[in-house]
Parts: sequence; C-alpha cells; structure tokens
Amino acid sequence: MRKPEERTIDYGVQEMLVKAREEGIETAFDRADAANNRCKFGMEGVCCKGCLEGPCRISLNGKGPALGVCGADADSIVARNLLATVVEGAASHAEHGREVVLTLLKAVRGQAPYKIADEEKLYSLASGLGIDTDGLTVNQVAEQVALKALEDFQKQEGVLNWLKLKAQDKTVAKWEKLGILPVNAHLEIAKAVKRQAMGCDADPVNLLKGILTVALVDGYSGLHMSTDLQDVLFGSPQLVRSEYKLGVIKREYVNIMVHGHVPVLSEKVVEWAQKLHGEALQLGAKGINVVGVCCSGNEVLMRRGIPVATNFASQELPIVTGAVDAAVVDAQCIMPGLTKVAGCYHTAVITTMPYVKIPGAIHIEFNPRAADDAAEKIVRLALDRYQQRDEARIRIPEDKIEVYAGFSTKQITGLLQKLNKERPLQPLVEAMEKGDIYGIVALVGCTNPRTKQDWANTEVAKYLMRNNVLIVGTGCAAHSLAKFGLMSPQGVEYCGSGLRRVMETLGGLVDLPALPPAWHMGSCVDNSRIDELLIAVADYLGVEVSRLPVAASSPETHHPKAIAIGSYFLTQGVDVHVGVKPPVGGSELVSKALTAGAGEYGLTMEELFGGKLIVEEDPVLAAQKLLERINRKRKALGLSA
Amino acid sequence: MRKPEERTIDYGVQEMLVKAREEGIETAFDRADAANNRCKFGMEGVCCKGCLEGPCRISLNGKGPALGVCGADADSIVARNLLATVVEGAASHAEHGREVVLTLLKAVRGQAPYKIADEEKLYSLASGLGIDTDGLTVNQVAEQVALKALEDFQKQEGVLNWLKLKAQDKTVAKWEKLGILPVNAHLEIAKAVKRQAMGCDADPVNLLKGILTVALVDGYSGLHMSTDLQDVLFGSPQLVRSEYKLGVIKREYVNIMVHGHVPVLSEKVVEWAQKLHGEALQLGAKGINVVGVCCSGNEVLMRRGIPVATNFASQELPIVTGAVDAAVVDAQCIMPGLTKVAGCYHTAVITTMPYVKIPGAIHIEFNPRAADDAAEKIVRLALDRYQQRDEARIRIPEDKIEVYAGFSTKQITGLLQKLNKERPLQPLVEAMEKGDIYGIVALVGCTNPRTKQDWANTEVAKYLMRNNVLIVGTGCAAHSLAKFGLMSPQGVEYCGSGLRRVMETLGGLVDLPALPPAWHMGSCVDNSRIDELLIAVADYLGVEVSRLPVAASSPETHHPKAIAIGSYFLTQGVDVHVGVKPPVGGSELVSKALTAGAGEYGLTMEELFGGKLIVEEDPVLAAQKLLERINRKRKALGLSA
Repeated sequence: MRKPEERTIDYGVQEMLVKAREEGIETAFDRADAANNRCKFGMEGVCCKGCLEGPCRISLNGKGPALGVCGADADSIVARNLLATVVEGAASHAEHGREVVLTLLKAVRGQAPYKIADEEKLYSLASGLGIDTDGLTVNQVAEQVALKALEDFQKQEGVLNWLKLKAQDKTVAKWEKLGILPVNAHLEIAKAVKRQAMGCDADPVNLLKGILTVALVDGYSGLHMSTDLQDVLFGSPQLVRSEYKLGVIKREYVNIMVHGHVPVLSEKVVEWAQKLHGEALQLGAKGINVVGVCCSGNEVLMRRGIPVATNFASQELPIVTGAVDAAVVDAQCIMPGLTKVAGCYHTAVITTMPYVKIPGAIHIEFNPRAADDAAEKIVRLALDRYQQRDEARIRIPEDKIEVYAGFSTKQITGLLQKLNKERPLQPLVEAMEKGDIYGIVALVGCTNPRTKQDWANTEVAKYLMRNNVLIVGTGCAAHSLAKFGLMSPQGVEYCGSGLRRVMETLGGLVDLPALPPAWHMGSCVDNSRIDELLIAVADYLGVEVSRLPVAASSPETHHPKAIAIGSYFLTQGVDVHVGVKPPVGGSELVSKALTAGAGEYGLTMEELFGGKLIVEEDPVLAAQKLLERINRKRKALGLSA
Repeated sequence: MRKPEERTIDYGVQEMLVKAREEGIETAFDRADAANNRCKFGMEGVCCKGCLEGPCRISLNGKGPALGVCGADADSIVARNLLATVVEGAASHAEHGREVVLTLLKAVRGQAPYKIADEEKLYSLASGLGIDTDGLTVNQVAEQVALKALEDFQKQEGVLNWLKLKAQDKTVAKWEKLGILPVNAHLEIAKAVKRQAMGCDADPVNLLKGILTVALVDGYSGLHMSTDLQDVLFGSPQLVRSEYKLGVIKREYVNIMVHGHVPVLSEKVVEWAQKLHGEALQLGAKGINVVGVCCSGNEVLMRRGIPVATNFASQELPIVTGAVDAAVVDAQCIMPGLTKVAGCYHTAVITTMPYVKIPGAIHIEFNPRAADDAAEKIVRLALDRYQQRDEARIRIPEDKIEVYAGFSTKQITGLLQKLNKERPLQPLVEAMEKGDIYGIVALVGCTNPRTKQDWANTEVAKYLMRNNVLIVGTGCAAHSLAKFGLMSPQGVEYCGSGLRRVMETLGGLVDLPALPPAWHMGSCVDNSRIDELLIAVADYLGVEVSRLPVAASSPETHHPKAIAIGSYFLTQGVDVHVGVKPPVGGSELVSKALTAGAGEYGLTMEELFGGKLIVEEDPVLAAQKLLERINRKRKALGLSA
C-alpha cells in the first residue's frame, strides 16, 4: 500500500486519505494498490476478447501463440484494440456534442429553458457554416446552426460540416488524400465498431487509418461542436477568478458537488443553488456552495467562477470531508466507487442521465425540457441531506488556492488587442519569434489513481515553464496545475525570464501583477479552444499547425477520451506526449507508426502529419523530449533555437 | 492436438486437415488447440480493459480484488462487456443493412447496375411503411422505401421505422413501457459505446436494458432491413436444389469461393462468372464454378442455387484442396488466417471493402457504382490464377450431398396455399396443434474451431426432429444441417412419425418424396425470415410470438453477431440456447437475469418477455431442455403435451 504522500501531492487529498483509512473507507487509490497484478497481455494490447473462439492472447516472449485462433496477429489485435479505445473516446465526446445540439434546438423552439448567451459567437458560426442570416431572428439563426450540427450525425455522404468549418484547408486536403475524412459521427463510430469486430479489418495500417477517421470525429463532432454550442448557450468564457482544492468546501454551507461533463445539467444546478439560497438560510446554513469536480467543474468554473474541489483520481475524497450534501453527476469519468464512499456518510449521489446509473445512487432524470424541475429537485435533495449531517465526522482540509481561469480564443484575442488593436496576434507571435515564448504546450488529460496524483502534470508543466514554454491547460490536468499555483499570477515564479516578462506585461492589461503562465482553457472538450488558438496563430503565420513550435502532453492519462484527443492532435501534426503507457507495446508496427520519426519506420504519424506520439513516464525526461521537438520545429520555421 | 475426427465430423474437412498437416499448413483448428490456455477472467467476463487505470480483473475465487480501480464490480463489468459484444454484433448487421439501402438507392437513381427483382415485396414494404404509391413508378416507390430505411440511421426522435413495420404491436407496447425502443441504429450504437465506456453506466440492470435496445437495432436495422431490401434487389428465395460439402469444388473448373455476408458483391461475382464462361473454356477449363462459404454462400445458395463448400470454422480448408483459384471476401467472419493458407497455394485472396483488408490479400475495391468493373476484375483474376495451379497438389474430397434451400415466408406460404388457398397457415397450425409438429426450433449461428465442427448443430437438430420438432436453419448452423442430409428429403429418416408425415405431405406438393424437415431459411440476417414466420403463425393464432412452442438454438456459437441475434430473440420472448458459454459467468446478476425463470430471480428475461437463455454445452441435454420449454409453452397455449 502506498502512503498518502505517494498517492498524491495534494495535501488536502492526503489528509482525506488518512481520514478515509481511519474510518475504514476504501478509495480508488486503495483499489489501485490492490490491483497491482495487472494483466501483461492487456497492458501490451495483445488480448482479444472479440469472439467465443477466444479469449486469445498473443505470446509476449515468443513461447506461446503468435496468432489468435482466427489467425489475427499481434499487429491486428493491437490495432483493433486501439481503434476500440479511440471509438469509446469519440463516442463519449460525440454524444456530448449531440446532447448540446439537441438542447440548443429545444431551447430555440421554446421547448427547453435555456437562452442564447453569446450571439456574436452564434453569428460567427452561422457565417462559417454558410448560413444566410438575412431576415432571421437570433433564434432562427440558432436553429439553422443547430440543424447544420445535427447533419453531422445524419448525412450519408460528404464530410462533417464542423470539420469544414474549423480545420485548416491544407490539412483537410491532406486528410482527403489519405481517405480518412469522416462523413457523419455516428456512422463512423458504427463503422469503426464493425471494422474492429471479429473477421473484419485485419490490416493494421488500414485500422490505423480507421483510428484517424474516428479521431477526427472526436475533434469535430466532439470537442469543437460541444465547445462552440456550449458557448452559444452559456456564454464564451472570460477571465474569471476562483479557488481550488478541497478547502473550497464550506462547513457552514450546503455543499453540492457537480461532477461529469455536460454543462446542460451543471449550469442549471448552479442557477437553482442561487434561487434556493433563501431556503438554505432558513436551515441555518450560510447559503449553497456548488463545487466542481472533473469537467463539469471546469465548465462552471470557466463561465461562472465556481470553485473546484479536485480532479478525477480523488473524486471520492470530497465526500470524505463529511460536508458534501449531494454529489450530482451526469456522464463520463464517474467512478462507481462514489456511491460506496457516499454510503458511509449522509451524502446523496444523484445520477441524472437515463443511460448512466450507479447502484446506490438516487436517480433524478434530467432532460433539457424539464431542466428546471430536475435541478430544483436536486438542490432540494441537497438541502434535505444537509440536515442529516454528522457534524462529528466533518473535517475539511483548509488548503485552498486562488486561480484565474476563463481563457478562450476570444478572451485571449480581446486581451491582446489592448497591445495591438489591428493585429492582436502580433505581440504573441513576436514573443514566440524572440523566444520569450519558446513554444506552447497543451497540458491536458487526466489523473490516474495508479500514479501520484498531480505530480507528473505539474512537473512537466514547471519544467517547460522554466524553459519559457507557455502552458495551456484543460481537463483534469488543468486542475492539477491550478491546484499548485501555476494558474495564478504567482505562477510566474516558475517561469523563465522571457515567459515571465510576457506574462507580467499581459497581466498589466488586466490589473494583475502577471497573467498566469498556464492558461486554463476549460474542460476536455475545450481542447477545441487550444486547437482554435493554434490555428489562429498558424493562419496568422500562413503555415499549418503542424509547423508550429507546439506540443500536447498528457502526463497522467487514464481515459479512452484522452487517447482519442491525443489521436486528434496527431492528425493536426502536433506532437503528443502520454505519461502512462497505452496498450500498444505488443505490436512493433503500431508502436512505431505512432512513435517513430519520419523516415525511421515505414508509414508513421510524423511522416503523414508532422507530429508523433511520445511515451515517457518520467516527467522530466518527457519535458526534455517535448523541448527537443519544439526546438526542432522552431528551427524548421526559421526561429532561434 | 485433437485428431481430425475430434475437430469436425465433416469427412472432407478431416481429409483436408490431414493434407494441411502433411503440407505443414496451420489452420484455425491447430491454433484453437494451441490456445487452450484461455484466460479465465476473460471467459467469465470479469476482465475490464476500459481505461489506463487497468486492465482490471475481478477475482473469481474471492481471494483477489472484488472491484476494479474505479469501483466497478463484477456485475457492472460483465454487463458492460456483454453490451460491448452485442454492440459489435448489431453494428455489423446494421452496417450491412445500410449498405444494402445505399445500393438500392443508387440502383433506382441509375447510379448502380442493379434492378428491382421483387416488385411484390417492394410494394408490400411500401404499404407497411405507409408510403402512398399512387402515381409513382417502381423505381420511385423503391426510392421512397430506401429513404424510409435510411431514416432509421438518421432520425433523432421516434422509433425505428422498420421496427414499427415488422414487430407485433403488443410486443412493441411492452418494449415501450420498458423504455428500450431504439430511435436510430447508429445513434443507439454510439450511445451504447458511450454508456459502456469508463465512468458511464455502472448499473447492471440499466446496462441490460441497453443490451435490449441494441438487440432491437440488430433485429430491425440489421436482420429485417437487410433481408427485406436484399429480396427487393435480388429476389425472394424460392425452393432451390443445390449441393454441399467440399466435393462441390470441381477440378476441371475455375473455382471461385465467395465468403462474407453482403450479397451486393457475391451476386455480381456470380453474374460475371457466367459472363466470362467463354474465357474459361478458352483456358481449357469446363467453366467457372462459384462456391459459397458462410453467409455469402447462403445468400447465393438461396437465390441462385450456388453450392456451398463449407462453413465458418473450416473456411481455410477449401483452399487446401489446391483447386480454389480465388477466394473473394467482403465483411465479417473472415479469418485473417485465410491469406496465410492461400500463401501456400496459387489462390488469390481478394478483399473488396475499404474497411476490411487483410495483409497478404489483393484488394479490389468494390462499391455499388462500379460493381461490374470490380466483379469482372475479380473473375479475371481467378482465371489468371487458374493457370498457375500446381496440379500435383490438388486433392478434392469427393464427398458432396444434395440439399434443398430457399425457404422464405413467401415460399412457405405459397406452398401451404396448395393445401388451403384462403388460410394457408391453417395446415401448419393444425399440425402444431395435433403435435405432428411439436414445435419449431431455429437452429442458427456458427461453428467454432474450438468445438467439434457440425457435431453439436446436427445432434441438437436430430434429437429435436426425432421428437417431431420442425427445424428452421440459418447461417453456418444451416450449413451444418445441410452437410449432413437434414436439409434434403432424406432428412425425414431422422424424424418422428408426425413430422415425417407432414414433410411427406408437403413434399408431395412439389414433387419430392418429402420436404426437408430442416428448412434452410438463409443467412444470419435471414433470421428475420424465421422471425417473420413466427409472427405470421402467432398473428394467425392471435397471440404474441412469446407464447408459441418455439425456441432458438445456437449450439456452436462463436461471433458477437450470434450473441446479438440471440438477444434479439430474447426480446421476442423466444427461448434461446447457446452451446458455447458466453462470458457472463462472473456475474450472478447478469447470468440469472438471462437464464433464470420468471419469479426465480428478480427481474429476468423470462419475466419481461417470456423466454430465457439456456447455456448448455451438451447437445442432447440442450435438446431435452428445449423440448421441456416447448412442452411448457404448448401447455400454456392449451395444446397437448
């Protein structure tokens, strides 16, 4: 069993791990320790459960079977498994996208209690989608945009509308030549499921192409579409101050933890928490305190400044404070373990989606039409549970920290316009050219109960910042950076002099001592914002994104969605680092196709797109490798090394 | 290593297994023997590879972890894995359905060289779908039907058109009440992928409901839609005589083996084999002989009388004859091992679909638009390879057998009309009432290289036939029965006196000594024909299918599609037997929900729909259990036991 300090670098979480152990409560960290005898075949991707001839497993030492019963070899099996993983990620994101589309559609048709919050973004999308807005009301424009979005789940030929809207033309041409352009998100998902099933695609190279198609689905029908339409519905983020860590849970308040991904729910919970403030006062509480976990946390942080308690790996620990009255979840990354921990306290775990239930949870079905009803019920249940607290068991870590979030392309451009009204990207590009900003790295993805929570995420970031690399963060990785001060003005302490100078200059524009050197750009679907920012810079320079001195890093990977997002960045030619080994080791072909350089091994990602996968568990070595790649791209672009 | 006679009861296959061994060629049977150390966790369904916290495995003996790292227990994991399996099956069938729709659409728009072959069926579908055909040409009607079919992959609300077209109203009401009605096939597939991904649905009961939704997708967007539109395009089957077993391969002919599932390809290969007959003669061959394997074999057998060489488990063995010049495949159930075996001969393995490739195969891309081009190229490649044969290595088993296939609802009704013009089902129903036909069992599914090929399929069938159960067969199971004489008039030798009498009477109507007592109803998607027949009988009796004395049996299961089809039959209230254990043993909840009787264990399939899963490896015990279930349903229906 690892000690608390070996499990996480978050003191508050450590404190709660001790409390949990004292109270005999099992957490994911305990289970990760207990499950240390992991299956080698599964870890290397050579286990196939695809039919009842098996399960089959390909020998890793050459002494057992080299082929499955059907004749599939390690290359086929690893590639199929990887495709299945990426499909799980893309299906998660694409369904997220579609749910937001349907919410928008219902909203503008008067069937759901949501309103258009960002008309400017709406009209910009409409224009990009080729919609003639003349004579249309705002709602009619929104309806047209939503229908165009919905087409990406319906059309039987052509290419995703959202891909054409968002991707660089040159890059699209590359994908077209390769034959990987997706037609419609659901169609590609179903086709990919079919192709990886028994007796279909067995060609690892073809399967890798299939992965790329699904990665594009993830990027456009998942990330971009979700972010764009969420911004339309709930507003585009602007710089916002908030707080992080378990200390944001407040003993004197009714505490509601929102967890999951789709803000259609969490926005309404925040709204109803405000509406029922008076009732909380009547119960003797000081109010209702909503705190976030995972990406639902990111969504309401970015737009409403709601504080964040913690990230994925420690999602059970807020409950161990004894002061969380309700934990409301929607979909994805929700540990079934939550209800077991909550069962030891007064906390109500509330599931809300018809296709996401957990034994032991209370199910309050949420749908856009009856959003207010459900949100009200949820908040009332929290008020009810608040009265059942066991005061003697409450212990809340004091630790909390200031953070500035809300970075979107719009917000960044707006800020830079204060330096250069006509060409706002010019100061940023100049800083990159001079090396004050040596490069940009997207610190993204998860935390994982098997690894030391927040450690690799922050170590990679800090090393890069010292070397003047601007960090843009999303997802649980952003939570890690926020929890350790990298997303506050104090973060400049970790920066090289160039980056520090730039951040201080930018900070001055918004009356801060410095802008945080790690920009919180939102949830995992908001990796679209990072993509958008990179495209803006690349377009400004007249090059493809693949040529920029940028990279992505997910040091504490856990979810298939992270693999899908990584695959998406690879299609853009961006180098991608993962700090947890993906299950591809059993196939040299698949491993090399992902990780080898151009010219080093047949057809590789780098050869095709200009970026490759870097698998490195050690955060310092990972940061060094990323710097080396950035250095190489700087040189190729004619910038100083 | 099992001896040839332990691997299959098909003498021709045994002979080829000996030849393969002599020639140092490995087959699936060898690999099945080598892979006998199967993973216990995988076999019981308690292995989870869903994220990089794992792979996790739940202890089977109580000594290891009871939960995955995320907290998922065996029930969740088993249910999720089963959902993933059913999704693979449904995605395979639904994509099959959609490809046929697109072919029909292109055909009627003059973009693909296919014509409407069964106008009567077309108009019957149009009427059922509520299409006003007044003033429309045949092609226009077909276009409307195709667009209605396509809606089942596009609509965002409502219910599958094909489900409303085909299912019994009472049963639909039951599904609606349970909340399992599918909206659109691709949407449900994507949603199911999402719900079984890490951190989504963890409630095994809810996941089982998800399985049922996907099972309905399999049934209506997969099975029914595929069969219906294939009949429209290629004709509804009529009684046809043909032959089975490896002896159908002819030394003096150019031999082309068609293998896969979607007849859009195989129909064209048959057509071009006839067109290029003269060129074969010029090469000194007597002609071009197309032989079938798996469901492509079934499709061209049912409609063209093309002979069948063998079924799934022994698909590599026709090549070992040394006389197969080309093996043309489309999708599903295609062993990658094919190219390795073919590499030892002159045989060309030809893949045809962009998303199904195999290393070592020649890829000739096939699509409906350029169908003739591709089919011509394929046949010409076979002609070319014919000239490269090594005569010394050719050995073709002599064994072959007569079969009558082509049973469709239309054909059966047509036949029965000779006995009762107005109420054709009356004689069949009377025979069932009297017990001359004690029940009907669908013998369906696969063969599996791990088990003795054709043995359990034929043993179950023979036992049931002795007890006057009429057998209706599809897929590779039908191949098994055909190979052993059960699908010829001689099959009555195995029948009880009642069934024999009925088959002799029916045989007399078509100038045969007897109708085969096992009716070949086609490919795996043609399980829709069985469903249609059962519904016709049930409607005639004014009851739901679930009340009929019928069952389904898949004694040699291997593919996820078989699990999906089995799940579909369960939604209809039909008892389903499988002879290979599905990976659900690790969860009592999931196992019992599927296999326990009504009232025996919480919510069960039988409780919900009236039929349950029977897992029984021994064919005689399986047949006895099926008889017991039929007996019970006879009694409940007021029929003699």
